[in-house]
Amino acid sequence: MPIISRLLKHLLLTPMSSDPTLAINGSRLLAQLDQLGEIGRLSNGGVCRISYSPEDQQARQQVITWMQAVGMTVRVDAAGNILGRYPGSHHLPALATGSHIDTVPRGGRYDGCYGVLAGIEIVHTLREHHLTLRHPLEVIVFSDEEGSLMGSQAMAGSLNPDPESYRRPDGTDIHTCLRRVGGNWEAIHTARRDPQDLAAFVELHIEQGPVLEQAQANIGIVTGIVGQRRQRILIEGRANHAGTTPMHLRQDALVTAAQVILSVHEMGSRPGEHVATVGYVQVSPNAPNVVPGRVELSLDARDLDSDHLDDLLGEWGHHLDVLARTNHTPIHRELTLHTQPALAHPRIQEVIASVCRDLTLSHIHLPSRASHDAQELARITPMGMIFVPSHAGVSHDESEFTSALDCIRGANVLLHTLLRLDQIL
Amino acid sequence: MPIISRLLKHLLLTPMSSDPTLAINGSRLLAQLDQLGEIGRLSNGGVCRISYSPEDQQARQQVITWMQAVGMTVRVDAAGNILGRYPGSHHLPALATGSHIDTVPRGGRYDGCYGVLAGIEIVHTLREHHLTLRHPLEVIVFSDEEGSLMGSQAMAGSLNPDPESYRRPDGTDIHTCLRRVGGNWEAIHTARRDPQDLAAFVELHIEQGPVLEQAQANIGIVTGIVGQRRQRILIEGRANHAGTTPMHLRQDALVTAAQVILSVHEMGSRPGEHVATVGYVQVSPNAPNVVPGRVELSLDARDLDSDHLDDLLGEWGHHLDVLARTNHTPIHRELTLHTQPALAHPRIQEVIASVCRDLTLSHIHLPSRASHDAQELARITPMGMIFVPSHAGVSHDESEFTSALDCIRGANVLLHTLLRLDQIL
Repeated sequence: MPIISRLLKHLLLTPMSSDPTLAINGSRLLAQLDQLGEIGRLSNGGVCRISYSPEDQQARQQVITWMQAVGMTVRVDAAGNILGRYPGSHHLPALATGSHIDTVPRGGRYDGCYGVLAGIEIVHTLREHHLTLRHPLEVIVFSDEEGSLMGSQAMAGSLNPDPESYRRPDGTDIHTCLRRVGGNWEAIHTARRDPQDLAAFVELHIEQGPVLEQAQANIGIVTGIVGQRRQRILIEGRANHAGTTPMHLRQDALVTAAQVILSVHEMGSRPGEHVATVGYVQVSPNAPNVVPGRVELSLDARDLDSDHLDDLLGEWGHHLDVLARTNHTPIHRELTLHTQPALAHPRIQEVIASVCRDLTLSHIHLPSRASHDAQELARITPMGMIFVPSHAGVSHDESEFTSALDCIRGANVLLHTLLRLDQIL
Repeated sequence: MPIISRLLKHLLLTPMSSDPTLAINGSRLLAQLDQLGEIGRLSNGGVCRISYSPEDQQARQQVITWMQAVGMTVRVDAAGNILGRYPGSHHLPALATGSHIDTVPRGGRYDGCYGVLAGIEIVHTLREHHLTLRHPLEVIVFSDEEGSLMGSQAMAGSLNPDPESYRRPDGTDIHTCLRRVGGNWEAIHTARRDPQDLAAFVELHIEQGPVLEQAQANIGIVTGIVGQRRQRILIEGRANHAGTTPMHLRQDALVTAAQVILSVHEMGSRPGEHVATVGYVQVSPNAPNVVPGRVELSLDARDLDSDHLDDLLGEWGHHLDVLARTNHTPIHRELTLHTQPALAHPRIQEVIASVCRDLTLSHIHLPSRASHDAQELARITPMGMIFVPSHAGVSHDESEFTSALDCIRGANVLLHTLLRLDQIL
């Protein structure tokens, strides 16, 4: 459609309405969720749609078709991100929403897709009510959320310049991957967005945890996305005969490991919003009749407050030094991941809360302890996130489920949040 | 040699001497240890001579040749045990010694062989000094010590009647194995010894632990061979996202496992001679970003005092029940091994101690926390065991080492122990 006729068409649309009864078409949203879930569908109802795979390419094409069908102009940037744009009535930076449509190898149909399709449904709703916003509205599908957050990193200018860091587990290089989806690593810098061009980014997502369900809350207002620290912990003892080695002559790496595991749990359980986990253990030689000579552990710690996290980890590190000396089992640690927290903008949190009150939906504030594209967007624009309940807190699993009612509620909260932000920004 | 001429020859031998300067030929013993260590020798000096293997068969033939060369009559019983007999001057039950010549897959050259070859060297020494004992002296090579103690069990009448329980890890059945070494499972009951036919059994062995070296003692007088209990412990939690699952909503199987590991260490460290070990850990799903949903552990506990061991394990079991309830992580336990302790005869321990004093060798009393054929023989005859130091406590490893001096000292202690038992029994 030529630019002139698009502009003419927009003049015909009524300006922004703040009618609180405006609502998305729930059946239409759920039908699209089902339809997208068919691409890469597993026999048990889950989805396998790895980034850059043929299934991912097929799903991208479907989403582009849907975006165009509701009147959005669509472009694919050098990072393979799909940007659907619904023009605004004023010359203003864009309000943006969106998420991802790639999945883990055995994922569910809600993680990511829900936020993307809710965005498209919102545009559909606006359009059929002949509504337009002051700001252009963008719905973005970010590339490779599950693998690396590459798409949102490229947009936020936080990309690792080394293409090797984006090589796929199957060995495929990022140049090849991006060519498959219309991107281009050589021009990846062009995917970076000018902060002047964005007014805000709001992502709608399933919680992927049990907090909302436990609290019997309809909506979660995300306070921020936690920073993460991961460490590889190696404990050196001395392997020995479990019968012939008296207790006082042992250097049992597993006894030290047990103390480390409990100290991580204790650190995680202190007052605060942080979590800390040992999820991986490898014992050597791992035989019932041999005193363990070597244990490898993982540490995963997350918090919204980076200083608090570093304080906790510093104190914990001192404790480990004492353990190592006391038990005569040296402990080596290596930092394997370090990400900074991304705070949600207080103003956006307030807007979401006011929408919940007006729609009489119960809500709580909570941090997101999983990664999201929103954490990258927060580097360049005010960010907010809306969570809906995940049944039993399960995600990254074929049994991932969010009820139809919760899906519709969340999309309406996003709709009205965007409408209000459109007025105040 | 016909029986008559053998009897005539014995009449020419002088009766038993109690000369404390009598000593074995150390060079000869060490040369035979080296020679036996060549059969199944690994490139780094270790030995691989699995029971019933071609290497085991070759070593058995070598030992039979050596026994015959020093004037012993040799027979192989239905369990494949090799019994070399040096006649005594009186019609008395036999004094017996011996051990095994099979090894673990990557074993050393001392474990077992040392006791067998010291026995043969003692007969050699007696014979070249024209000495005979009042009792017949038997040197026994037991079948499959490393795998199952099958040979000594058959002799002691403690065999498991189910031949399946002796099937080899490579799948070979016991019938086939025994045929290879001159035994016969169908006649296995004939291997059982009448307690009336044995006066005592004394086994000389490397310690396979660090206690003698730490105590700077030349000789260990074994107080008994510990009883063992093994359990498989299964802890059920709930696997969950390590980011999105708050600490208070977790059922972390690994946190419970850490408490179990420390409780086993605490139980092992209480006053007493027992040991307790967790050597095996399997975590599921074992990923850094997933709260562990399931952990399997092993327990190995050993003590000379069965009641004490059962008391400790009973109290520990109650503690585990509390842990399971408190942490909402059910703990299932399964007994996988249960053996009774075998005490060394106090009279034999006294004799060994008096020999050490006369030979001015430092000595300590200690339990054997590893299994030995002596534990089976103790069921049918007074038993004693003599330990010599293992360098750094290492055994079941190619680097297993006992010094030449310690090997010679131990063999002389066995020689004089047998001489004194010959007089007092």
